Amino acid sequence: MNDMKLLEERIRKDGILKEGNVLKVDNFLNHQMDIELFNEMGKEWKKLFADKNINKVLTIEASGIGIACIVAQYFNVPVVFAKKAQSINIDGVIVSKKYIGPEDHVLIIDDFLANGCALQGLIQLVEDAGATVEGIGIAIEKGFQQGGEIIRNKGIKLESLAIVDGMNPETGEIIFRKQKQSY
Amino acid sequence: MNDMKLLEERIRKDGILKEGNVLKVDNFLNHQMDIELFNEMGKEWKKLFADKNINKVLTIEASGIGIACIVAQYFNVPVVFAKKAQSINIDGVIVSKKYIGPEDHVLIIDDFLANGCALQGLIQLVEDAGATVEGIGIAIEKGFQQGGEIIRNKGIKLESLAIVDGMNPETGEIIFRKQKQSY
Repeated sequence: MNDMKLLEERIRKDGILKEGNVLKVDNFLNHQMDIELFNEMGKEWKKLFADKNINKVLTIEASGIGIACIVAQYFNVPVVFAKKAQSINIDGVIVSKKYIGPEDHVLIIDDFLANGCALQGLIQLVEDAGATVEGIGIAIEKGFQQGGEIIRNKGIKLESLAIVDGMNPETGEIIFRKQKQSY
Repeated sequence: MNDMKLLEERIRKDGILKEGNVLKVDNFLNHQMDIELFNEMGKEWKKLFADKNINKVLTIEASGIGIACIVAQYFNVPVVFAKKAQSINIDGVIVSKKYIGPEDHVLIIDDFLANGCALQGLIQLVEDAGATVEGIGIAIEKGFQQGGEIIRNKGIKLESLAIVDGMNPETGEIIFRKQKQSY
């Protein structure tokens, strides 16, 4: 649904593939962070969610926070980040009830989507607070894992700027899903 | 060394004082994040560190990341965030050696400075990598704890945008240190 070729190109250039479908992008996305790239991502999501009335960006610590803050500038809204819960449920996320409530129309932003457990925790949290998930923006989705499909099946508008459908650590080949342009 | 009255006013308006010298600012700084305020902070640090040749911003997960990413836009540099080490040393911080090296001139950004242990870990990490700490920008310093004094005594340029010298949870009074203007 977008033409964010810049991110795909950057993944091809700087991403490191490892056995077990591991894609390391800590050079530019989630350890060292390329703020110019984040700004381009923000512009893209602003176009993709132009029809949505968003008043808050929600993300999850730690690596989602930087992207979320840069992206929020394009929507002129504050950011709230969920904390990973220190509990038996390892996918638990928590947010103070003060900062997500029935009046909120939320754009969820995160760096990665794979099995989607953390993201489903965030969606549940928003719904439990009586707020509305207007959309979800993911930088890199692993299309061969189930998270994206589960969430799209809920009817939520999910826009991943790059969807990796396959990768080969021996050859370095990465197959990106072709996405239709929405504008 | 600055006139960042905006942050002091915001602390007076939205900060919550609790017993034990606790100052909660999660309404705008470290849980919900006011991106416009972060931009004003970025402009201020850009002025305060105008004479420094900075090529990287370093911060520490989780609550420093958002401020650091917005601030980095004023210096046109990438951000690296240190991770809290899962070790016996609770103040341990780690960064991949790939992202801090001898060529780096680093501005360290964080939300709070109190006893300064985490910050001293960051400084040590930069020095161990052969890089240079050009300066440190802190949003809120607790001036009645020792961190600020220890770090200024090292000869490092430390600019805290608000320094709280005292607070009274019963009256709600907050005493800010008067800072000279540097420009």
